[in-house]
Amino acid sequence: MTTKRARAKRATVHDVALEAGVSRGTVSRYVNGERYVSAAAREAIEAAIAKVGYVPNTAARNLVMQRTQAVGFIVHEPHSLFVEDPNIGEILLGANARLSEADHQMAVLIVDTERDTERVARYLSGGLVDGVVIVSARADDPITRVVERLQLPAAYVGHPPGAASTASFVVIDNRGAASAITERLAATGRSRIGMIAAALDRDSGADRLSGFRAALGDRFDDTLVEPVPLYSYSAGRDGMRRLLERAPDLDGVFAASDAVAAGAIEALKEAGRRVPEDVGVVGFDDSAWARRTTPPLSTVRQPAAGLGAGAAELVLDRLRGEDTPTERRLDCEIVWRDSA
Amino acid sequence: MTTKRARAKRATVHDVALEAGVSRGTVSRYVNGERYVSAAAREAIEAAIAKVGYVPNTAARNLVMQRTQAVGFIVHEPHSLFVEDPNIGEILLGANARLSEADHQMAVLIVDTERDTERVARYLSGGLVDGVVIVSARADDPITRVVERLQLPAAYVGHPPGAASTASFVVIDNRGAASAITERLAATGRSRIGMIAAALDRDSGADRLSGFRAALGDRFDDTLVEPVPLYSYSAGRDGMRRLLERAPDLDGVFAASDAVAAGAIEALKEAGRRVPEDVGVVGFDDSAWARRTTPPLSTVRQPAAGLGAGAAELVLDRLRGEDTPTERRLDCEIVWRDSA
Repeated sequence: MTTKRARAKRATVHDVALEAGVSRGTVSRYVNGERYVSAAAREAIEAAIAKVGYVPNTAARNLVMQRTQAVGFIVHEPHSLFVEDPNIGEILLGANARLSEADHQMAVLIVDTERDTERVARYLSGGLVDGVVIVSARADDPITRVVERLQLPAAYVGHPPGAASTASFVVIDNRGAASAITERLAATGRSRIGMIAAALDRDSGADRLSGFRAALGDRFDDTLVEPVPLYSYSAGRDGMRRLLERAPDLDGVFAASDAVAAGAIEALKEAGRRVPEDVGVVGFDDSAWARRTTPPLSTVRQPAAGLGAGAAELVLDRLRGEDTPTERRLDCEIVWRDSA
Repeated sequence: MTTKRARAKRATVHDVALEAGVSRGTVSRYVNGERYVSAAAREAIEAAIAKVGYVPNTAARNLVMQRTQAVGFIVHEPHSLFVEDPNIGEILLGANARLSEADHQMAVLIVDTERDTERVARYLSGGLVDGVVIVSARADDPITRVVERLQLPAAYVGHPPGAASTASFVVIDNRGAASAITERLAATGRSRIGMIAAALDRDSGADRLSGFRAALGDRFDDTLVEPVPLYSYSAGRDGMRRLLERAPDLDGVFAASDAVAAGAIEALKEAGRRVPEDVGVVGFDDSAWARRTTPPLSTVRQPAAGLGAGAAELVLDRLRGEDTPTERRLDCEIVWRDSA
């Protein structure tokens, strides 16, 4: 069997000790980072390790050290978003960079089906990671239950589900940022402002709608809100078509994400509306989408890489024994370009 | 310390045995999937496991079973592509679905810096995965060396690097597909056809240029080839601007990917050229980009999810002890829309 053969070839502590002319105990102390290894022994062991090609067996060390130096990163997103949402990539890379600095390996676990949920929960229980970053947690989910039951060091990007009251998390102020960009759009002289409101079943989506409503106050008109299921280009295009049919006199649109805004701009052009002359459009994210639209998009810059890095830091804090649940809130800023 | 406390709370085989009223050996046999556990004992053990919340310790089982039921998936791509290339997401999800069916957990390991390369190599040696799928392998890379040295069950998406002669891999015929779409573009009556050739340091990039050249034969003009570093929107836009400056009379363009084509179309519009009336544009991938361009893109459909699933299958074959290196070639097809 392939695996067995591979393992039989692997150099052992014994080979290193033989080559270095020291005891196996000394090699073990060196490998486990303990003190009391003389400089001479250390040098001989390092040369021997390079020569015989020894690699410590992490699975065996886990049992002794109870550490894998690995941190899981769970992405629980709809199939299409995982493929087309640039934020997820930025969050991943931000977390990876921070964990890498701390010499931890990030292992991304994708939840795409119900079956994945159960299996990821088993994997987390299996001791193959020391902790976990969770994006888009669901409240009544086997993953959340396992994290709680094992008290696995964890941090969430976004608010943790209800049950996870002891969890650490990193958020942005979706409501405040949505309110700020809606006010800025209104200040360009628009009087019939609509919203394409995505993902209302999630905090981020509900909070962005709530900020929009707050900014408009008395001028808020709920017939100008078009709910769409996902933060996606096609949801934005389809939502804008429906909204235009219902409210052809609309002169401003807040799209709940940049991808949604890009789809909305496409639908406005189809319908012969000029952006920004006839309709001003603003988005949310400042992802790669914002530089691809014509005209370039006015939007809220969300610190996606910072969210990943922040959550990674909170997990590392917990691994160092800091048990206090921590909420970290990152700032957003408005980036004003030419679409409104 | 958080980790230790969590582990102290974890139910053990002993707790299950006590609750079920059977011996620890019987519980172990059940957990390890061995025969000779009576139906009555099995039922009692299952009830006890549910009651005490026992989860087998995978790290401990690894030492006995030499299996983690986890497969690594290494993505070694430039930062920007990981964020904006929809193919990578599709390949990931294709591999995840196939591994999930076989009850294996996929752990994605991102290589973003030199430091990541070394650490991923250590992780692979540590026994935390049974095998690995590798996208965008580099020839003289610590990861490739570790895979070879440990004979870790592996499969590559794309051709494996030179050294890995015993590796299994899944490919598409980049050269043939590029040649076919170039011929189709020429058949629309274009006489000055250029190419934005991306990533010439990689097989896929070099093969697509080679197919383009072969299709044009005597009509090939190397001043009409504009090399760009990455398969990206901005590389396509910048490359098209330079190509237009050099060859304003150009009437057809083969872009090495759909993202490159989307950038090229933007640059053509900027320059006042109509697509397809003045310049016909074709791409490669049939990713989400192809449906976002105006007009929709004529392109080569690459089976991205199939590449991921195929590589996952080849790793599973190796885990089942099939040692023969296997090359699997997937078909592409031309999808003709309105951009040429």
